[in-house]
Amino acid sequence: MSLLNHTIAVDAMGGDFGPPVTVPAAAAALKERPETRFLFFGDEGQINPLLEKESALRAVSTVHHTDKVIANDEKPVIALRTGKQSSMRLAIDAVGNGQAGGIVSAGNTGALMATAKMVLKCIPGIHRPAIASVLPTRKGATVVLDLGANISCDAEILVQFAILGAVYARAVRGIASPSVGLLNIGSEDMKGHDQLRAAAGLLSQVKFPGRFAGFVEGNDIPMGKTDVVVTDGFTGNVALKVAEGVGSLTSDFLKDAFKSSPLAMLGAILASGALKKLKQRLDPRFYNGGMFLGLGGICVKSHGGMDAYGFSRALLVAADLVAQDYNRRVISEIESLMKQESFISGLAAYGAEGS
Amino acid sequence: MSLLNHTIAVDAMGGDFGPPVTVPAAAAALKERPETRFLFFGDEGQINPLLEKESALRAVSTVHHTDKVIANDEKPVIALRTGKQSSMRLAIDAVGNGQAGGIVSAGNTGALMATAKMVLKCIPGIHRPAIASVLPTRKGATVVLDLGANISCDAEILVQFAILGAVYARAVRGIASPSVGLLNIGSEDMKGHDQLRAAAGLLSQVKFPGRFAGFVEGNDIPMGKTDVVVTDGFTGNVALKVAEGVGSLTSDFLKDAFKSSPLAMLGAILASGALKKLKQRLDPRFYNGGMFLGLGGICVKSHGGMDAYGFSRALLVAADLVAQDYNRRVISEIESLMKQESFISGLAAYGAEGS
Repeated sequence: MSLLNHTIAVDAMGGDFGPPVTVPAAAAALKERPETRFLFFGDEGQINPLLEKESALRAVSTVHHTDKVIANDEKPVIALRTGKQSSMRLAIDAVGNGQAGGIVSAGNTGALMATAKMVLKCIPGIHRPAIASVLPTRKGATVVLDLGANISCDAEILVQFAILGAVYARAVRGIASPSVGLLNIGSEDMKGHDQLRAAAGLLSQVKFPGRFAGFVEGNDIPMGKTDVVVTDGFTGNVALKVAEGVGSLTSDFLKDAFKSSPLAMLGAILASGALKKLKQRLDPRFYNGGMFLGLGGICVKSHGGMDAYGFSRALLVAADLVAQDYNRRVISEIESLMKQESFISGLAAYGAEGS
Repeated sequence: MSLLNHTIAVDAMGGDFGPPVTVPAAAAALKERPETRFLFFGDEGQINPLLEKESALRAVSTVHHTDKVIANDEKPVIALRTGKQSSMRLAIDAVGNGQAGGIVSAGNTGALMATAKMVLKCIPGIHRPAIASVLPTRKGATVVLDLGANISCDAEILVQFAILGAVYARAVRGIASPSVGLLNIGSEDMKGHDQLRAAAGLLSQVKFPGRFAGFVEGNDIPMGKTDVVVTDGFTGNVALKVAEGVGSLTSDFLKDAFKSSPLAMLGAILASGALKKLKQRLDPRFYNGGMFLGLGGICVKSHGGMDAYGFSRALLVAADLVAQDYNRRVISEIESLMKQESFISGLAAYGAEGS
């Protein structure tokens, strides 16, 4: 086991609210993971007064002042060129130079991915990083990737994503042999794009830290059919946003229903405890934290509009990836994959077929 | 206006239940659309006794006996070859030879699409048929296509789908100038696959029976941002199934919540009227009826597990497409599109770029 660095670099200015959210969030995360240390990057004029109110957090935190911030609508290429002193870039640099074990930002997603890729590079052997997130399901939770980093993915990249997801499910979620499904439009072998069938062929042959459960369909995600669902970033992004949209539509319709009559309002009051539990079960804040997996350092993206509770959940996602030494495990699994005869010959066969 | 044939050919045996669902469903549909006539294809030993109970329906129905049925797990190619006397095939043939104006089946989707394509062909100028369905949204309903007929689609096909969807929204839903969105993973111009950007370019230039609203994201579907959402069949199928899955997950969780305490149960009883209305608002049976648009005849697919109410909704979808002379309108719009200079030059430009 390598010496772990439990320090999380926080882009204190990222997101819609900045320090009033990111600082109290760190205080909440510290209560859950007392071994964590924090490096805040941002406006010390805003950060320090908030830290004053959190003595336990202040004792384990360092503030690096900068008044540069990447705007939410900044193009990634401009952020890369002009954002070298920004809170986001400095926080990522802290992981790159070993000061921190992971970085969390609620800022501009495109700029965060572009900067993290440039600074942290990919894990050796990994071709592309993926955005992964945990979604609530009938059976608990499922990790889905890619959620938008790569609009198209070949079979080898999909196999790597299966490994990134399976290592996460095993290391962080404690599932000894996580089931991995490939998202498709039917469970029959002949369905879907060529690269999906090729990835399915490879995953059936190789040894990896999970078991391949074949093709899954869109409804299998909320059903929790598998512990991990692998897809390209285009499909995954649409699936995630449809799921969020339908969840919020249903919640709106439920509120409308309870407001529709005095009797319904009384019913809602009586059932309020149960309804609160329902809300918690599907709370997007609880599931906040998009993991940029496959990079040379831990990087987690929070939704921009999250409150302190939501941002603290993203901090915990990063803390857990660090504590479970996620990247070291991925390195070892990718090395093992690349040595497997079934992988090498399978890849060659599919490559020849495709050309 | 051409002479409309208001006869609907019914694959009486398709789906999980056959005549006990399809016959009462036709009786219910007849009450809503009294001009409709029905041709039932299937086992007369099962159909006739059910028709005896529905005197109004019996008066406008003809039964064509066959004891052949396409199995739900039959491969489309086998269904084509060996299913010539099946209830599904004979019902489609009835549209092909002009006996009926439309056909509805709850049977094997792949076999239905393959057979309908072979018998009915595409509307002149249309390259591929699409599966379209109406989904509930915050603002009412949105028609989404393609939901699974074509796993990948070039720009021209996406433009044709926009026309198929817009003509439906105008003709059947009565929206004078329906808004049309292209499903993507961001609303910025540079996002997504090449064919999406090319389709967006074409839709911005050409005149068609709707207005192009640019790119939409997954959450914009349940939000009801546009009247029509166009996507390839892979993404559309995943989006539809995720939406269905999240809807049913939320409903399950709501039931769990109401069962969690005596107080919550009492609350649910008091709010039962309002909750029933909520259920109706999202009732998958109400939205049943996948339209195979772009074929040379009206063909609608019901979910296999639907009850009589659900199947009657699919019959009404077909009846409305017939009554609004949907196909004639599409023919005229496609003819108009193909004459437009902006379409011809735009397509040539994108084609040259792609090659």
